Amino acid sequence: MPSSIHHVCEPPYAYALDEYRLNVRLKVRRRGAATCQALYADRYDSPGTELPILMERVGSDRHSDYYEAILPALKRKVRYLFLVQMNDGDSYWVGERGTFAQRELAGSFQFPYVCREEIPRVPDWAHEAVFYQIFPDRFHNGDSNINPGDVQPWDAVEKPTPLSRYGGDLQGVIDRLDYLVELGVNAVYLNPIFVSPSNHKYDTTDYYTIDAAFGDLDTFKQLVKQAHERGIRVVLDAVFNHSGDQLFAFQDVMEKGEQSSYRDWYYIDAYPVVQEPVPNYETFGNGIATMPKLNTSNREVTQYLLDVAEYWIREAGIDGWRLDVANEVDRRFWQLLRERVKGIDDQQLLVGEFMHDASPWLHGDQFDGVMNYLFREAALDFFARQNIGAETFTELLTSLQMRYTDQAYSAMMQLLGSHDTERFLTACLNGGRGWNSQETALARMRLAVCLQMTMPGMPVVYYGDEVGMEGRNDPDCRRPMIWDEEKRDAATYELFQSMIALRKKYVSLTRGTMRFVFADEATNAFGFLRQTDSEVAYVIINNGTHPYAVPAPPLKDRLHACAMIDGLTGDRYTLTACGQWESADGAVPTAVPFGCVVLIAGIDR
Amino acid sequence: MPSSIHHVCEPPYAYALDEYRLNVRLKVRRRGAATCQALYADRYDSPGTELPILMERVGSDRHSDYYEAILPALKRKVRYLFLVQMNDGDSYWVGERGTFAQRELAGSFQFPYVCREEIPRVPDWAHEAVFYQIFPDRFHNGDSNINPGDVQPWDAVEKPTPLSRYGGDLQGVIDRLDYLVELGVNAVYLNPIFVSPSNHKYDTTDYYTIDAAFGDLDTFKQLVKQAHERGIRVVLDAVFNHSGDQLFAFQDVMEKGEQSSYRDWYYIDAYPVVQEPVPNYETFGNGIATMPKLNTSNREVTQYLLDVAEYWIREAGIDGWRLDVANEVDRRFWQLLRERVKGIDDQQLLVGEFMHDASPWLHGDQFDGVMNYLFREAALDFFARQNIGAETFTELLTSLQMRYTDQAYSAMMQLLGSHDTERFLTACLNGGRGWNSQETALARMRLAVCLQMTMPGMPVVYYGDEVGMEGRNDPDCRRPMIWDEEKRDAATYELFQSMIALRKKYVSLTRGTMRFVFADEATNAFGFLRQTDSEVAYVIINNGTHPYAVPAPPLKDRLHACAMIDGLTGDRYTLTACGQWESADGAVPTAVPFGCVVLIAGIDR
Repeated sequence: MPSSIHHVCEPPYAYALDEYRLNVRLKVRRRGAATCQALYADRYDSPGTELPILMERVGSDRHSDYYEAILPALKRKVRYLFLVQMNDGDSYWVGERGTFAQRELAGSFQFPYVCREEIPRVPDWAHEAVFYQIFPDRFHNGDSNINPGDVQPWDAVEKPTPLSRYGGDLQGVIDRLDYLVELGVNAVYLNPIFVSPSNHKYDTTDYYTIDAAFGDLDTFKQLVKQAHERGIRVVLDAVFNHSGDQLFAFQDVMEKGEQSSYRDWYYIDAYPVVQEPVPNYETFGNGIATMPKLNTSNREVTQYLLDVAEYWIREAGIDGWRLDVANEVDRRFWQLLRERVKGIDDQQLLVGEFMHDASPWLHGDQFDGVMNYLFREAALDFFARQNIGAETFTELLTSLQMRYTDQAYSAMMQLLGSHDTERFLTACLNGGRGWNSQETALARMRLAVCLQMTMPGMPVVYYGDEVGMEGRNDPDCRRPMIWDEEKRDAATYELFQSMIALRKKYVSLTRGTMRFVFADEATNAFGFLRQTDSEVAYVIINNGTHPYAVPAPPLKDRLHACAMIDGLTGDRYTLTACGQWESADGAVPTAVPFGCVVLIAGIDR
Repeated sequence: MPSSIHHVCEPPYAYALDEYRLNVRLKVRRRGAATCQALYADRYDSPGTELPILMERVGSDRHSDYYEAILPALKRKVRYLFLVQMNDGDSYWVGERGTFAQRELAGSFQFPYVCREEIPRVPDWAHEAVFYQIFPDRFHNGDSNINPGDVQPWDAVEKPTPLSRYGGDLQGVIDRLDYLVELGVNAVYLNPIFVSPSNHKYDTTDYYTIDAAFGDLDTFKQLVKQAHERGIRVVLDAVFNHSGDQLFAFQDVMEKGEQSSYRDWYYIDAYPVVQEPVPNYETFGNGIATMPKLNTSNREVTQYLLDVAEYWIREAGIDGWRLDVANEVDRRFWQLLRERVKGIDDQQLLVGEFMHDASPWLHGDQFDGVMNYLFREAALDFFARQNIGAETFTELLTSLQMRYTDQAYSAMMQLLGSHDTERFLTACLNGGRGWNSQETALARMRLAVCLQMTMPGMPVVYYGDEVGMEGRNDPDCRRPMIWDEEKRDAATYELFQSMIALRKKYVSLTRGTMRFVFADEATNAFGFLRQTDSEVAYVIINNGTHPYAVPAPPLKDRLHACAMIDGLTGDRYTLTACGQWESADGAVPTAVPFGCVVLIAGIDR
């Protein structure tokens, strides 16, 4: 079915891996193709000089198989086309003019020139990053002298309201840095910390000042310094889509109306500016008066915000920004932000908040990665709600991976929950077919964490998930952190700890390719391979209620000593010459119900 | 076949038409769908509030049908999904998570916010533009005092060589402006006119000075002034991918090597810089030493070139730029160029040179349109080489149209040939199945012109095509213009004149939508409708050797007085109540062999 063949010469279907290598991706109807080849040549070489490369099937979603090949681009100027041999015997040429049985009609795709600036690049450390997200008012109160007046007791039985304050602060984060080291994370993402009237601080009053309830510049610099000393990077939350209504610029517009020199900083519909009953200006969300939308196409606004971004990097030494409501801001602004920030240091991380698909923002010119809420959504369906099986789940994950470049996918914040969502454990308690005992829910959440810690991207732990905290949607998901040992779930904490340690130990788990190798709908187990040149990890996730005997891995490469080591137990499994488990005693690796097995091996070259 | 359903929330599949309307496009296997619906809602409205719109099938290519709908975006924030009813009875929901039988799995696409700056916009005049391309050395010699020393006689029997000079100049263009008025064109695109050692001047020595063989600043200002007085716009050729090797900056690098302050203006592999036997720096093409590639990511280079672009707009009043080798320059540079040029005047036109697919450059942030060489290629296959029939040809044209936004497609330079290609007439003489008499070749070229002048985009006449000039590839396609009446093909000239006049007379031909309504492979005829709110044009192109009786048009709207007028002959045809030609005397509109019929009607509302 040639209508199912898809390629365009744009990311994620065609992009540079580095100056001299292109990745090309082809989408074909699932199980439709016997083989796919890419044929490539230098654009200035004469016709007929194309060299063929057999493409690798790298994944499948519900309806499509994805094939990839890496094309050399030694002169930076490449033309290519595809030859797809279908299982039904037909074959098709795929070029820029379309898909045809005749090669001469298809033409060639052109990658005109590998511009150095257009190669998607992410900070090197992103590959190894394991994030911990902190909502500052709720993590730890390290300095009660700066408590807000209306602070709640940390262990109050009442649930948080939209207005509650608990007195968490930056000194509290500093005090708990060793805790983070013990957990194993190496990066912290802090929700906003600048002056604002709210507890969440997404309505910024002053972009240049730390909110007094959280500390001051010195406290924050101390936080960054001490974090860095422990190998922990610090990423801040930038709210550039809108300001708070208390920001000087908006106050000026409120006061002076049309005469204000800041009138073009916002989108004002009429003067005088009113906030009630409905704001007569554009806002975040559906008319939230305290969050007027900033006009980021205004050059003054752009300069102002870029200066803010630069200031905190230079002044406090932060390692990057998470950008709020990134999807509603013009792309030009994000390009300028990238230019400014990466111009200071190309190891600065830029991650956008996206609840949905982020493809257009991840072509390399804006964000390194985004908060991958679509991963969370799929994980909820599979682990918590249990309304999809292993096959659909791996299809969804593949579909997500295939819509981004490899670079972008390695810098995705892979999260299970955040300050804006129900906690994953709570979803596990309430979801599914009635197996919602605390123990089962914990087991399911832990299994999701096993996946999170073994797949590509940057795993994010939302504070407290590691000790079994619960919470429905905002504000309930922002309860104060549980520090009381008796209330913390030790098994969960240990699972987080061991999975993070495992991820940090094996390069295949951070930098390896990602290929699903089976998804068993009946048992609800699936497996995947993460592979580098020298190492392979074989991960099996069993989301079923029965033990799952792990099939031998379908490997093309020769394993060192024909053996795989269970990364969590140290057990050793050897493979026969024909690639089966050598199990004279019947011992093959087995994933317990709601369990995960991670087998590691070196590769002989 | 759900694998054949394709949509992404990016141009050209989703884009804003204006601040409050989105165009969404869906690709489905040809003849696969019975109906397609788009369901949309404000992103902040609760689930279940989506409103359905039936999508229109706007075209088909070889394997796919394309459907479109216009979604209101009153609050600028829209979510949507699709419901596709397949002909086999299955139906599918299509959302950001994929294509599924179950709506709850599909999710919704999100158009997060209609950013004003991201709405693709092209100059208003582009819709009515008919271009004439002039290669200055070969159009007309208006001032023999500035002839280069080695000038050839205008009527020399020898063909041009790569080095020939004929003495054409800007005064020559001025002298012939009334000729252009008579022909009917309203825009001129001039190949490069700045100082350069070559006759083509693609190796710029001085971006700020008119080449002395062409005239001086005053001559050029005079040209623009007199053109404007005649309603003719002037677009210049900007060669920003590379400079000439005589440019001061490259000379400085040649001279001072690593010490040159211009060393980062180019991509130098080693010092000292050498030009022979192979240049040790990056060049245009495959090592053309006289054309060193400019490093357009260097901020100084960017500033320098943007200043050039601005200078000629402000100093001489030009109406836009055609950008050479646009596909090999980084997109950031083109975005900056757009910002600078459109900041001066949003009616400035920016057209890129693209021999191939230009999708990534036409999302609204870089070029208005491009030189549509892929249209020429398809037209060659159909009219000249005759190796495809009417069906394949209309499929190729639809495929081209569907890869761009409507805005971009209206600003495409629709060309049949240029200074870089064989002339279309020559291709007609040499192509095909042996019917290559002069008369047949002329008829075929004229038929291609009929299409060019009735389809969307900006038609371009390459100087001399209108009088039947011939020429193989460069340099032969750059022969001196034929002014000798006896050597000019009068019938061809009149055809150009009448088709241009027709295009300018009927708004449906410039601003109407484009829908192919039939393509008859046996007779090699096809028809299409161009429609605005108030007018419809029904165009039939008969590329066969037999007369073609035109079928009544499949119209949904009621025609004024139930009649269509032949735009070229004035003949009137009425339609019966059941939408057939009312032809008591047997007279239905008929397209002669290699002929075109253009029927026009008003629409009653």
